[in-house]
Amino acid sequence: MNPDSVTATELRNAVRDVPDFPKSGILFRDLNPILGNPRLFRGTVKLLAQECEGSDPVKIVGLDARGFIFGAALAHELGVGFVPVRKKGKLPGRTISHRYELEYGSAEFEMHCESILSGERVVVVDDLLATGGSAGAALQLLKQLDADVQRVLFVVELEFLKGRATLHPAEVRSLFSYS
Amino acid sequence: MNPDSVTATELRNAVRDVPDFPKSGILFRDLNPILGNPRLFRGTVKLLAQECEGSDPVKIVGLDARGFIFGAALAHELGVGFVPVRKKGKLPGRTISHRYELEYGSAEFEMHCESILSGERVVVVDDLLATGGSAGAALQLLKQLDADVQRVLFVVELEFLKGRATLHPAEVRSLFSYS
Repeated sequence: MNPDSVTATELRNAVRDVPDFPKSGILFRDLNPILGNPRLFRGTVKLLAQECEGSDPVKIVGLDARGFIFGAALAHELGVGFVPVRKKGKLPGRTISHRYELEYGSAEFEMHCESILSGERVVVVDDLLATGGSAGAALQLLKQLDADVQRVLFVVELEFLKGRATLHPAEVRSLFSYS
Repeated sequence: MNPDSVTATELRNAVRDVPDFPKSGILFRDLNPILGNPRLFRGTVKLLAQECEGSDPVKIVGLDARGFIFGAALAHELGVGFVPVRKKGKLPGRTISHRYELEYGSAEFEMHCESILSGERVVVVDDLLATGGSAGAALQLLKQLDADVQRVLFVVELEFLKGRATLHPAEVRSLFSYS
């Protein structure tokens, strides 16, 4: 057995459930125990790399901020570039922006105009798919940049929030999910 | 020559200088061109890994948010865990926090109480050393957790802001600097 390999069940078992965060009624799925464990973190990145097979991205697009963690490690694993989608006000120079609604609250995402060339194959990465608001905003920005979005990857998906449907027709994959 | 190897001069030449960001009078050193270039990004992570030699960290501690990008890729390269230092309000569960002053403005950092065990060897990573406010706050939190901070690594250092002195006695290293 490959020492790097982990199963989705192992990852799911490592998640820490925190009730009422960031507000009452929300059950927060905390992935920090995965990050802090060398084998689970490495295994997660390897699983994400497997989910990229056949998509041949030239850049990984990671969402601010937890998507940076998995996305940058994945970009390094694949030997490709990394492009951040940032909360508004963090990127210098010419940017495009898109406002979106979150599971709780709203926010605005920005990307550098020159961060993706027209037609470049990219894979989008974030830690968790909830309502799809943030990933949807990223897809809007990538559409403006004429990126070729091959896939949208998440470590975990909250299926009951039906975020996947909002990202149609993008190919969405998650390593494990809560139904 | 190792295809992964890049020089500090190459990295410096890739930095994009953006005047008056995030406010008038600040010359922002934008590292996004490094991230987006597969060879430069990979080479940067390899250089950071070299700077870890002899320190044998069990975890990389990355600072919110650009430190996540370099730190997570470095953790993956080294096969160790990753621990985020986050802006206040982002971590569920029990945390410790520390307020600090920035080159522009102020902020508060948080870490999970259980993210580092007493005596664990860690290396701290951020993109840029300016006044040292954010890294200093991270060191305060790591001291509270009784972490064994082996090194504090930056891709770039603004020497004229003398942040390095504020991090004493931590061992500080940067890949390149502006004097």
